[in-house]
Amino acid sequence: MTPEERHRERMQRKKELIDRKIARATIERGVLVVNTGNGKGKSSSGFGMLARSLGHGFRCGVVQFIKGSFSTGEEAFFRRFGEDLDYHVMGEGFTWETQDKARDIAAAEAAWKVAADMLADASYDFVLLDELNIALVKQYIDLDAVLTALASRPPEQHVVITGRGAPDRLVEVADTVTEMRVVKHAFQAGIKAQRGIEL
Amino acid sequence: MTPEERHRERMQRKKELIDRKIARATIERGVLVVNTGNGKGKSSSGFGMLARSLGHGFRCGVVQFIKGSFSTGEEAFFRRFGEDLDYHVMGEGFTWETQDKARDIAAAEAAWKVAADMLADASYDFVLLDELNIALVKQYIDLDAVLTALASRPPEQHVVITGRGAPDRLVEVADTVTEMRVVKHAFQAGIKAQRGIEL
Repeated sequence: MTPEERHRERMQRKKELIDRKIARATIERGVLVVNTGNGKGKSSSGFGMLARSLGHGFRCGVVQFIKGSFSTGEEAFFRRFGEDLDYHVMGEGFTWETQDKARDIAAAEAAWKVAADMLADASYDFVLLDELNIALVKQYIDLDAVLTALASRPPEQHVVITGRGAPDRLVEVADTVTEMRVVKHAFQAGIKAQRGIEL
Repeated sequence: MTPEERHRERMQRKKELIDRKIARATIERGVLVVNTGNGKGKSSSGFGMLARSLGHGFRCGVVQFIKGSFSTGEEAFFRRFGEDLDYHVMGEGFTWETQDKARDIAAAEAAWKVAADMLADASYDFVLLDELNIALVKQYIDLDAVLTALASRPPEQHVVITGRGAPDRLVEVADTVTEMRVVKHAFQAGIKAQRGIEL
């Protein structure tokens, strides 16, 4: 057998294995995706899925729970899609910036009210709740209320939740969970947050 | 001291610490970001950064090295930005689909040629090389050629490289590296790849 034939045979076996796995994955429904961990990519991955969803003509909703984490690049970009996208920047910035716990809680509650309305509305195909985990970790929003809203949402609706420290009970009910792990970060080497990358 | 005052004082100390760290990060230049690991979010995070970059009016280039990994949602979405974005889908799909190593290598080389031209062209502010790591792991593209092109690229140019199995020498020269770790995946529970999430 030539090396080319061996390669083809190995790849044919691999294809059969993968095709069998794909054939077993037959369920079609809205999924709950959670991006957590300390590394870069939690929010940007959420915005990449938002781009995919808009590409399919889905109606999309975004609620950003922490104003300080907000990228002006994202806002400028996604604001162009007025008709298909409801984009809400809520929250009051990072807690060490506001230094006012009562105001932070009120802002988180207002953001959750907007999010809960989206999760109850079947006209939204895709909902991104950016940095919701931060508000859950700080107990500014009731985890039970969030789990109930997620469980009773329209069955076709996709939801993506980002932020470090995802609570265990959220991880349990999610379909796809990724931990973004820092291997290294430019900031550690003295490089400022860069437009197009962080901003 | 009231609990509110204690909170404010704690947050004030945290703010000073973070502000000092931010003040130390003064370098401004193009960064090299690598998204690797087996989890979801490597490509979607790259596309989120592409959205940020387009939001800032940057000229952007995208080369997708593996056709099979390609999301129709992304293509439909980003094709709308003709003037600011050069979008190349190269490659010949996953190796177990083509089963033809010579064709895979030729496709990877053609994709790398387009990418190398972008890395030599200062008019590109942001370049996304999606799934390049796969082609490097399979040694379809010469790692030394890639490292040389990255090192001699325009100093302001941002580059994002995705794909599992990032080579150690690429990780060494990168500024920001994230490992996307699978905690769980919907596919394992029999759920098909979903439009807007994977497709």
